[in-house]
Amino acid sequence: MKLYGYFRSSAAYRVRIALNLKGLDYERVAVDLVNGEQRSGDNLARNPQGLVPTLETDDGARLTQSLAICEYLDERYPDPPLLPSDAEARARVRALAQLIACEIHPLDNLKVLKYLTGELGLDEAAKLTWYRHWIAEGFDALEMSLADSPATGAFCHGDAPGLADLCLVPQVFNAKRFECDLSGYPTLRRIAERCETLEAFQRARPEHQPDAT
Amino acid sequence: MKLYGYFRSSAAYRVRIALNLKGLDYERVAVDLVNGEQRSGDNLARNPQGLVPTLETDDGARLTQSLAICEYLDERYPDPPLLPSDAEARARVRALAQLIACEIHPLDNLKVLKYLTGELGLDEAAKLTWYRHWIAEGFDALEMSLADSPATGAFCHGDAPGLADLCLVPQVFNAKRFECDLSGYPTLRRIAERCETLEAFQRARPEHQPDAT
Repeated sequence: MKLYGYFRSSAAYRVRIALNLKGLDYERVAVDLVNGEQRSGDNLARNPQGLVPTLETDDGARLTQSLAICEYLDERYPDPPLLPSDAEARARVRALAQLIACEIHPLDNLKVLKYLTGELGLDEAAKLTWYRHWIAEGFDALEMSLADSPATGAFCHGDAPGLADLCLVPQVFNAKRFECDLSGYPTLRRIAERCETLEAFQRARPEHQPDAT
Repeated sequence: MKLYGYFRSSAAYRVRIALNLKGLDYERVAVDLVNGEQRSGDNLARNPQGLVPTLETDDGARLTQSLAICEYLDERYPDPPLLPSDAEARARVRALAQLIACEIHPLDNLKVLKYLTGELGLDEAAKLTWYRHWIAEGFDALEMSLADSPATGAFCHGDAPGLADLCLVPQVFNAKRFECDLSGYPTLRRIAERCETLEAFQRARPEHQPDAT
């Protein structure tokens, strides 16, 4: 399998963690988002949205959207699972993952930040305020969901890492990069720190990728 | 089952279509987003993010995030399916759904538009430009993904409606409401129009909900 990604893309980071948790080998191909390589003909052919990640499977299929890729990996390589077996528990884990992937990350990604400082002419301070606003709003809800539920364990759901954790860790990484105040999120921080002790998460870190600058 | 929603919320609209496609009965409970009822203690207790929809199952579980709810319904009530059976095809349908749910809708929802006109002081014209920008960017990619693939049929995937279609129709509804130019998207419009001929989609329309104003 080939993963087209970028070291600092948190969507690619999620897929790297999933591949590592599954113990799968893959070739890494860098698409330089800062130089606009995602808009190149080559990348658009594999990913019509001009995004990363794209996973090229051994059959040559090109899969897009990080959560769809992770679910594919979970169906195709079920052991160890990224989702629990019970339907209600699966809904809980997917909702935690989507709280990050549909509510926080889309508002703080590179193309949106570029629109804010470009088209809208925002300065760096206003951009940072925007960034931190959506992190805080999302993390407030995530902390409450995790702290209040008996289903939360060493990880977001029980005592094994899964789909929610592989979304959480890249989002916490980004939040730290933008110096967001995380003091109000003890549960979320505890889980992210626990994840970081695992090799699957460590190897997926941005600074450990060949294209890291 | 009880669905806490709002007639014009496109996330709630998705779940209404899913419930209708499955032929499931449910009670509708309105949460008035314009009056801020989503931030009430009652709604926060069932949905810590202060959002809709929330699906309360017959066992009393409260499920959040529209795509997680739809996947739950598909696992719990498999017939008719919202996803194909093959893993690669499932990844395609989920990616199409997520292209809308993770890339377009989060940027154009009510809380973001309020931030633009409130905190950032944008006028209506600049807000509309923002709205249409993300619709156009997302629909460009969606049209290409649909038009270029032999897997596209009468619906987004083959000849039965599913998870991608129930995301597409509410997004097209919103795009029309904000008078976006849809002339460049013949495939997407053809599929949305076909969906609208089905009772499951018709009954889910915002104007057919009891809280419609």
